[in-house]
Amino acid sequence: MTITYQSIGTIRTPFKKTEGMPIQPSGAKGVKGKIELRNEFIEGLLDLEGFSHIILLYHFHKSEGYSLKVIPFLDDKTHGLFTTRAPRRPNSIGMSIVKLTGIVENILEIENVDMLDGTPLLDIKPYIPDFDFVNVEKTGWHANHSGKVNHISSDNRFS
Amino acid sequence: MTITYQSIGTIRTPFKKTEGMPIQPSGAKGVKGKIELRNEFIEGLLDLEGFSHIILLYHFHKSEGYSLKVIPFLDDKTHGLFTTRAPRRPNSIGMSIVKLTGIVENILEIENVDMLDGTPLLDIKPYIPDFDFVNVEKTGWHANHSGKVNHISSDNRFS
Repeated sequence: MTITYQSIGTIRTPFKKTEGMPIQPSGAKGVKGKIELRNEFIEGLLDLEGFSHIILLYHFHKSEGYSLKVIPFLDDKTHGLFTTRAPRRPNSIGMSIVKLTGIVENILEIENVDMLDGTPLLDIKPYIPDFDFVNVEKTGWHANHSGKVNHISSDNRFS
Repeated sequence: MTITYQSIGTIRTPFKKTEGMPIQPSGAKGVKGKIELRNEFIEGLLDLEGFSHIILLYHFHKSEGYSLKVIPFLDDKTHGLFTTRAPRRPNSIGMSIVKLTGIVENILEIENVDMLDGTPLLDIKPYIPDFDFVNVEKTGWHANHSGKVNHISSDNRFS
């Protein structure tokens, strides 16, 4: 089944190339960016300023192809692609939770950005702890690497 | 910019129609479903059984069109679409965090399913508290409705 989407806007960040980027928003604290929403969608922002955090879904536009087994940035062992957040995926959809600091017309000011400048935006959802906080029992290979995301940057392995 | 994806599998759930469904996984505790992953992607599941929760991105295949202002299931006032998780969106991508209870070949057994039977799956990501737990300051209109998701079901307003 083929599914077709249209970008609803563009994410602006300080990151012009894939090397040296933060690998998650939790490793990008305070890094400022903005969303340029297409004007036709402005009405959909009504009341969004009441939320401190939003979930962005976007297209990894510089990713091509994928491997089903990868060595993620945070480990030195091979794992299944679906246990990682690597950008090269069968459907290259990225998901980041960012802080929303302001909205002026079609521009959303955001913080903790970990995506490439020019990234096409697919969707904005409110981050709601009732829905998005989960008490997990197991976090697989990542359990040994908790906290590391704050001081590891990307290299070019997924570009 | 047009972006094209292919379904990587199908989500099976007890929900055959949009009315009366749970509106979030937190309102669907214990409801069992499964993912039928396309065989070509099985390798990508390596080590996934180590994670208790996974994030599913999928296509709301029964949603058509959208309104930029909506009355969400949890409130009686109109809000911008992007402050809600309503399925009718410019790009109808759904996101649910489900519990992973077993994997046998290409079948993933899951719990807390809140999507329609037959939903096309776009991506599986591991739920990792380091990335996905956020301390929010504000949750907008939803702040007055915390907890309600557990006992409200959908009607047909977004089908």
